[in-house]
Amino acid sequence: MLKFDDKGLITAIIQDVKNNEVLMVGYMDKEALRRTWDSGEVWFYSRSRQELWHKGTTSGSILKVHSVTKDCDSDALLIKVEPTGPVCHTGNQSCFFQPLMAEDLESGN
Amino acid sequence: MLKFDDKGLITAIIQDVKNNEVLMVGYMDKEALRRTWDSGEVWFYSRSRQELWHKGTTSGSILKVHSVTKDCDSDALLIKVEPTGPVCHTGNQSCFFQPLMAEDLESGN
Repeated sequence: MLKFDDKGLITAIIQDVKNNEVLMVGYMDKEALRRTWDSGEVWFYSRSRQELWHKGTTSGSILKVHSVTKDCDSDALLIKVEPTGPVCHTGNQSCFFQPLMAEDLESGN
Repeated sequence: MLKFDDKGLITAIIQDVKNNEVLMVGYMDKEALRRTWDSGEVWFYSRSRQELWHKGTTSGSILKVHSVTKDCDSDALLIKVEPTGPVCHTGNQSCFFQPLMAEDLESGN
């Protein structure tokens, strides 16, 4: 049984099936997961915009689902994908491209 | 500037540096991140137990930090590690070992 958090969301890690690079992390509600399952393309629930989000609708970089696994606690998903283009809105292949710096530990909200 | 959520937490994806396997996902508050940075070993904040958690204290499987990157939104971390043993409490190397099944979509809280 999947465990969604108190906002009805589950963490979804997106990994490139061809080289295992972690591309991004997003959050899904039940409907986003249902649409992902049914379409074979990744949908998220955007926490900032508070709406369902078909990844790639605007950018053109669709995430085609290869496999989905859940973790031992059933409260996170790992989705291996074939991306059709750079995943990050910056143009990078992955959203994880900035090394954490010492000053990052001094800041933050 | 790192963005912690309204509970003061940031998502941290743990990836094996040697083969890029995603091992687990956890959550850090500022103090867990500080301890991770200072010690070179991964600390989390346990949402269920509501306490700081030095991964491996009880299991013996320490996560030795190789690198830390933040994502484009500065609201998630990717931590490449060298684990000293199986990461999952089940004895699996990774916590992600169960394929999502159709019935998982019908269940959930």
